[in-house]
Amino acid sequence: MPQASIGIGPRAGRIAIFTHSAVPDSKGGAAPSCCKGDRCMDERPRLGVLGGMGPLATADFMRKVVEATPASCDQDHIPMMVHSVPQIPDRSAAFLSGSDAPWPYLRAGLSCLEALNVRAIAIPCNTAHLWYERLSRTSDVPLLHIGEAAAQAVLAQEGRIRKVGLLATSATLKGEIYQARLQARGVEVVLPDSAVQQELVMPGIQAVKSGNLALGAELLQEACARLRKTRIDGLLLGCTELPVVMPTTGLEIPVFDTTDLLARSCVAWWMQQTTGCSFARG
Amino acid sequence: MPQASIGIGPRAGRIAIFTHSAVPDSKGGAAPSCCKGDRCMDERPRLGVLGGMGPLATADFMRKVVEATPASCDQDHIPMMVHSVPQIPDRSAAFLSGSDAPWPYLRAGLSCLEALNVRAIAIPCNTAHLWYERLSRTSDVPLLHIGEAAAQAVLAQEGRIRKVGLLATSATLKGEIYQARLQARGVEVVLPDSAVQQELVMPGIQAVKSGNLALGAELLQEACARLRKTRIDGLLLGCTELPVVMPTTGLEIPVFDTTDLLARSCVAWWMQQTTGCSFARG
Repeated sequence: MPQASIGIGPRAGRIAIFTHSAVPDSKGGAAPSCCKGDRCMDERPRLGVLGGMGPLATADFMRKVVEATPASCDQDHIPMMVHSVPQIPDRSAAFLSGSDAPWPYLRAGLSCLEALNVRAIAIPCNTAHLWYERLSRTSDVPLLHIGEAAAQAVLAQEGRIRKVGLLATSATLKGEIYQARLQARGVEVVLPDSAVQQELVMPGIQAVKSGNLALGAELLQEACARLRKTRIDGLLLGCTELPVVMPTTGLEIPVFDTTDLLARSCVAWWMQQTTGCSFARG
Repeated sequence: MPQASIGIGPRAGRIAIFTHSAVPDSKGGAAPSCCKGDRCMDERPRLGVLGGMGPLATADFMRKVVEATPASCDQDHIPMMVHSVPQIPDRSAAFLSGSDAPWPYLRAGLSCLEALNVRAIAIPCNTAHLWYERLSRTSDVPLLHIGEAAAQAVLAQEGRIRKVGLLATSATLKGEIYQARLQARGVEVVLPDSAVQQELVMPGIQAVKSGNLALGAELLQEACARLRKTRIDGLLLGCTELPVVMPTTGLEIPVFDTTDLLARSCVAWWMQQTTGCSFARG
């Protein structure tokens, strides 16, 4: 007897139904018994994604991985196991108040991915990288570093960048994920002044997380305009919510989308693992 | 001693590095020992996504789930475990040639999600639903049905739909995922003629899967224009690659985006599980 569960959505009164035919006594054609999970089905290394911070940034990251992968069909793409559990306590608030609340959630998400036998893990959230060293120390699986991928791109930019503007959460700024990496290599990092950070950047990021993309775009583009008055010659979007609503082209100066750069470093890693050479789609 | 792995991308000669500091003798602060994976961290029911078919459609589906969820912060969003392993053999080619090649991959992916204790599973691929009954029979976890969610939306549309055009893979058409559901309820289903299907629809879907979105959009929009000559009063995008490149508004007739409708049925399911009432964001 099928079990039916009914969900009703208000949009044009649509009704969505799923039917679950649970017939436990006719389980013909089960998965091969050798499978612990499904790791025996394909030998290609899988990428783990510790996501959900925020969930829109995770979807954006996945799209960027797909777009950067040289592929002619589904099967050429990178297999990914994605842990998108956004119940991790707010990273920015915790870091600024000296709380370690996100840690057990981050560590547990990592354990889940480790158990799925992924060969490398990406975390599409800049602020979560404040826990990167500790996560990395406690894992045997390599973690790709979003700040390192982005800093390398700034340093490799044609027409050398001397002064890069940084838009990010207050915790990412305070934790100096980017400053040390870039200033040691001769790139000045310019931060928004405190009023812009409090009145535009943080509310803009929060608007994206709450689904108000139009408000997020408005606030963040204004923050960008204010920061550009300091005559920066490059802009680093140091929070994965930012490229969801901000254009990365047409600004006259190079814009570094950290989500895209992390995605490209994942593709490069995967190509190296599977073909011996590493390149991402241009 | 940190292990460093270097991947090089050709785009502006950028170099992406990740550093893995494996220090096995200083594993302080591990995850709580009660965690098998991380299921004890949060009790909210998790949605499983059997994806990768194709991977861009999976990212599009995740974005649509997020956008349809009433949320004011990250933590309000639906926790998802996503199995995006695109190495599953081509579903359309297999079904049309009488091969069962995708089955062990689909079943193994489902086993992986079941082991992660998800409470319902969505499959953002219409063609994979040709294996839905068998997957559902062999699983204790309810599977949401994309065709049922979409058919319900067609039937619930204001200004009754009498004749709906269907764009989908040849296998989805042949497997009659939509025809039986709609024709039995008085909606005529119009398919593209054989030349349009072979020369525009299938090459358009393949172009999206290979990353050539511009070509995909061109071919599929031409297929849409041809189908509209039959005076349909609604258009069903019965393949999750289609909404990636086709507009769903501005066509004068209602367009049913099956990815979005599956996403909304997931949100309705989740809201019902967590709050007792089910609604998706309008």
